Amino acid sequence: MKLATVRIDGQLHPARVEGDDVVLLSDENLEQVLSRPGADGPAETGQVLSRSAVEFAPPVTRPNKILCVGLNYLSHLQEIGIPRPKHPALFTKFASTLIGAEDPIELPSVGAEPMWEVELVIVMGRPLSRGSVTPEIALGAVGGYTVANDVTMRDFQRHTSQWLPGKAFDRTTPIGPVIVTPEEIDHARDLELRCEVDGETRQFGSTTELLFDPAQIIGYITQFAALHPGDLILTGTPAGSSPETGNFLRPGQLMRSWIAGIGECRNLMVSGS
Amino acid sequence: MKLATVRIDGQLHPARVEGDDVVLLSDENLEQVLSRPGADGPAETGQVLSRSAVEFAPPVTRPNKILCVGLNYLSHLQEIGIPRPKHPALFTKFASTLIGAEDPIELPSVGAEPMWEVELVIVMGRPLSRGSVTPEIALGAVGGYTVANDVTMRDFQRHTSQWLPGKAFDRTTPIGPVIVTPEEIDHARDLELRCEVDGETRQFGSTTELLFDPAQIIGYITQFAALHPGDLILTGTPAGSSPETGNFLRPGQLMRSWIAGIGECRNLMVSGS
Repeated sequence: MKLATVRIDGQLHPARVEGDDVVLLSDENLEQVLSRPGADGPAETGQVLSRSAVEFAPPVTRPNKILCVGLNYLSHLQEIGIPRPKHPALFTKFASTLIGAEDPIELPSVGAEPMWEVELVIVMGRPLSRGSVTPEIALGAVGGYTVANDVTMRDFQRHTSQWLPGKAFDRTTPIGPVIVTPEEIDHARDLELRCEVDGETRQFGSTTELLFDPAQIIGYITQFAALHPGDLILTGTPAGSSPETGNFLRPGQLMRSWIAGIGECRNLMVSGS
Repeated sequence: MKLATVRIDGQLHPARVEGDDVVLLSDENLEQVLSRPGADGPAETGQVLSRSAVEFAPPVTRPNKILCVGLNYLSHLQEIGIPRPKHPALFTKFASTLIGAEDPIELPSVGAEPMWEVELVIVMGRPLSRGSVTPEIALGAVGGYTVANDVTMRDFQRHTSQWLPGKAFDRTTPIGPVIVTPEEIDHARDLELRCEVDGETRQFGSTTELLFDPAQIIGYITQFAALHPGDLILTGTPAGSSPETGNFLRPGQLMRSWIAGIGECRNLMVSGS
């Protein structure tokens, strides 16, 4: 099942996406749908729209927590010359960074080195209390998986040892368009992911390369924090995103961030303030 | 004016605190009060309680953003041997870390090196859009100041280059009890702060030592993100919190975190899971 949050006349609606059909759901938001997975599936309003008639919002617009894993693909570690970490290198994002899968990205005038980072995103379903969890319990709490691009201002990322400022520019992280439930893609164990800018491949990899997989990441996080329905965990980016190239995003470019079996974000870069 | 959020029979209420009186306010929460400072002051419900009859919750329970500045006191930089940063070293906390000023802290069984970090907290009042702001505009948006202790699990902080996990344990950051409005303490320009454990002074300093002051911190943050009423910015900790001492918090200890002119958190350490 593919789930989305769509914008219709400025209002947000949870929906199920099937081919070209967008089936509106009765729940208030997608967090509610994700929190009670079941064989019956979510209740529908009866309204069905065409995919071309809706805009995709971030699938979850107000997550309780957004965590991100850095340095989680060996290929990316090698290109930036950093040794393999013993624990997931975690930082956070604010909900204010999120935009829809097809929204334009206003490149800020102060962030001079914007770069792409295509990532698999874990979307939490059932809540998990703080404490030790088995891999089975961790995966059982996953509501689904989606795509994001953790667009990063490399100059702000390097201001200090803490990466946050380069990752926290408002409205610079496209996410979606859909959340795919785990059984449909075998918990994203073996999916190709790719980032293209104006048709040129910048990043190409596979989730088989993840140093810490979803169960391990969730197991680490729940040592210190509970997780809630709709919480997002960005799992890191493969090679092809080194600032050494001097090749940064520019207004007018189209960035495509794609994961096989899930979907793609298509974002036009525009000049921002 | 001193503002607080108090718990009465499990319900949260915004309040004004004057001496021993806790005057309940008509607003839904303190974010609403902070967003419209004015000469008239907030409307009151007419109900007045004694300070001893209420529990203090975190003054803001669901901030939109919590940011923290590391390495912001020269004395603390010297004790841990780190050069002075050119920008504020920023990381975040989740709202789930916050507890009231007198709540016990359940020391987690997995975080083996819990340490105190008394900090001045900026509480945002009027919203600020992303963009360049003058120091006057930055300070004009401050709703008040409060006290927190950024209790940190030093072992988890050192797991990778990113400090988050050591700072993100659920329910380990006491904050409050009150927010003091800026005019009453001259924007916290010259306040003593202190942390004691079982009556022994662990940290002692003054906000005059801040490397980045509130106006500079807010000016830096708004380069990448908007700020909203009730957003919290922890401004860093003075010397006396080096893990080199091997002197960590233990169950049974009482931690006091105090800032002159604002108030103090008093937290008993208990064994957690």
